[in-house]
Amino acid sequence: MPEPINDFYAVIPAGGIGSRLWPLSRADAPKFLHDLTGSGQTLLRDTWDRLEPLAGSDRIAVVTGRAHRAAVERELPGVPDKNVFLESEPRDSAAAIGLAAAILVKREPDVIIGSFAADHVIRGAQVFDWAVRQAVATAREGYICTIGIPPVEPSVGFGYIQKGDELVVEGAPEAALVRRFVEKPDLETAKAYYADRSYLWNAGMFIARADVLLGEIAENEPHLYAGLMDLAEAWDDRDARGPVVDRVWPTITKIAIDYAVAEPAAEKGRLAVIPGHFDWDDVGDFASLAKLNTHGRGNDLAILGKNARILADASSGIVVSQTNRVISVIGVQDIVIVDTEDALLVTTSEHAQRVKGVVDALKVTGRNEVL
Amino acid sequence: MPEPINDFYAVIPAGGIGSRLWPLSRADAPKFLHDLTGSGQTLLRDTWDRLEPLAGSDRIAVVTGRAHRAAVERELPGVPDKNVFLESEPRDSAAAIGLAAAILVKREPDVIIGSFAADHVIRGAQVFDWAVRQAVATAREGYICTIGIPPVEPSVGFGYIQKGDELVVEGAPEAALVRRFVEKPDLETAKAYYADRSYLWNAGMFIARADVLLGEIAENEPHLYAGLMDLAEAWDDRDARGPVVDRVWPTITKIAIDYAVAEPAAEKGRLAVIPGHFDWDDVGDFASLAKLNTHGRGNDLAILGKNARILADASSGIVVSQTNRVISVIGVQDIVIVDTEDALLVTTSEHAQRVKGVVDALKVTGRNEVL
Repeated sequence: MPEPINDFYAVIPAGGIGSRLWPLSRADAPKFLHDLTGSGQTLLRDTWDRLEPLAGSDRIAVVTGRAHRAAVERELPGVPDKNVFLESEPRDSAAAIGLAAAILVKREPDVIIGSFAADHVIRGAQVFDWAVRQAVATAREGYICTIGIPPVEPSVGFGYIQKGDELVVEGAPEAALVRRFVEKPDLETAKAYYADRSYLWNAGMFIARADVLLGEIAENEPHLYAGLMDLAEAWDDRDARGPVVDRVWPTITKIAIDYAVAEPAAEKGRLAVIPGHFDWDDVGDFASLAKLNTHGRGNDLAILGKNARILADASSGIVVSQTNRVISVIGVQDIVIVDTEDALLVTTSEHAQRVKGVVDALKVTGRNEVL
Repeated sequence: MPEPINDFYAVIPAGGIGSRLWPLSRADAPKFLHDLTGSGQTLLRDTWDRLEPLAGSDRIAVVTGRAHRAAVERELPGVPDKNVFLESEPRDSAAAIGLAAAILVKREPDVIIGSFAADHVIRGAQVFDWAVRQAVATAREGYICTIGIPPVEPSVGFGYIQKGDELVVEGAPEAALVRRFVEKPDLETAKAYYADRSYLWNAGMFIARADVLLGEIAENEPHLYAGLMDLAEAWDDRDARGPVVDRVWPTITKIAIDYAVAEPAAEKGRLAVIPGHFDWDDVGDFASLAKLNTHGRGNDLAILGKNARILADASSGIVVSQTNRVISVIGVQDIVIVDTEDALLVTTSEHAQRVKGVVDALKVTGRNEVL
């Protein structure tokens, strides 16, 4: 077993619901609390298991909503109570990661934090480990470091990171500067990026000294920074925390870390990237879930659900079964069937992005009990 | 209100499960106990309501399985107890209709019976009424009479009846002899029949004097005839019936009335036909159920189920909802979704005929609890 990395703290923001995976993902059962790969455990637990060898179980923090506290503690029995940072309401990723940075830097001034989403799917633990170790080495030099995934296809579903000049960093032979971040491209542009090879997928992983990260927030989002300082000051004082959270958190700037930190830092030459040669997917919708579970074999029917009772004939796509009903699927291609106790979805991979529209429609029509 | 027809008894064989409509139709909830048109009542009740003006509520008999007795009595509170003929096990249509004929002729030697399936959909009550009255008039002359439906398309899903010479029958201006019966044709042949106009769909309706019908059975199926006589002799004697049923019914010849009566009678010039100018469908599978409920509009999504909560976007086909789950359907065409408490079917109209294969597979794999 390799040793945990010195001064390193892993942070798991466990926030998003994953509306495009409704009715599997819900407000009370968000994406990170599901097993989306048939591994037998939740994505959150998979994330923990990936990070434990890098940070040690005492040095993993989870930022999550109050409603998910019990589920998180059930999934991660090893997480110290002091490392579960509860949000009273979601305020986007800069607030979540910034809060963790502010609390941890107060505990340990030299801490290096790495933020890894709770609901991504990664395969290739050793390669992941190596990428994070390089990223931490790069962060130690004062860079904010991200891990970018070499594209395996011209995806229009992810943002891209363009690599710039190589960096010379001890322990990080693949480190390079980031030239720029780009939003999800159209197919034409994605094909150009894919051919270019200097573009990597933005997997939303950020590794930095906590003080460097907070400094970047201070420069770009001073109001957010001030709020985080107030929160961190009171956080580890049980009596003081509550009132400060109640006062400050609702006013915290809602902004993604990409805009508050990564893009401005890239412009200033402070952002580095390590290529991550592992399989990665953010499983953003049922099309990617199907692809992930059929391993790209387009004529397969993937089945998710430990009590699934499926009778399939000449069909492809994915069936997600959360009930113990018999599900019979005959002659349907690229189908997406999600069978839960109180809601059923039937669509195709092609229309997977439209699921969010259903969730919006359910909200509008007041059927919140199934959201 | 027109008067009921003299000497007429309507018989409703309520037997088949309708396996091609699984998981809606089940052993314990066969097709005739469902509302397949959104009328608000079962097909069996629809059938009763169609026949009551023709026969009177005291003169309608139902032949059904012992397991369905309670359901039949619930659906048809007006049916006299003595007119519910219970089969201990299904022995096909000649036995069911023959049993009714044998019992009724013993009660009334001159009775004319008309047999009408419990699970067909008919629209156009007045035209139906007129066809039956013509058929009874023809039966009174000693013919076995059927009602054939002028095809509205070259269907390969039904058998056909070829009309022969016209008959001169008082009260039946449309009566004609039947030249022959033909099995479900291929598409080429169906198109030829459709163009010819002398071919009618075989809707499985038979109207005849009970003694004539039994005479035909005696000629063609003497073993069946003997069994029916034994049963009828004992039937209306409560003490005698049980032992005779137990002894005779399991040995009764299993044969469809088409083979035992209609085809041989047609060959001998004893079968007549009245064209039925009403909308008729046997709703043999989900493709016909979808068509029936979208009224043939191919880009509509039909919804069946009184508590259905459907959110549909850019979809066509049919959703049958027997639960109160929210069902979201996005971007699927000609889809068939049947949502029941313990089983879910997803297929397309094109593959509707393959549903029976699922039922067979469920039997083979021992999952009888959902059949």
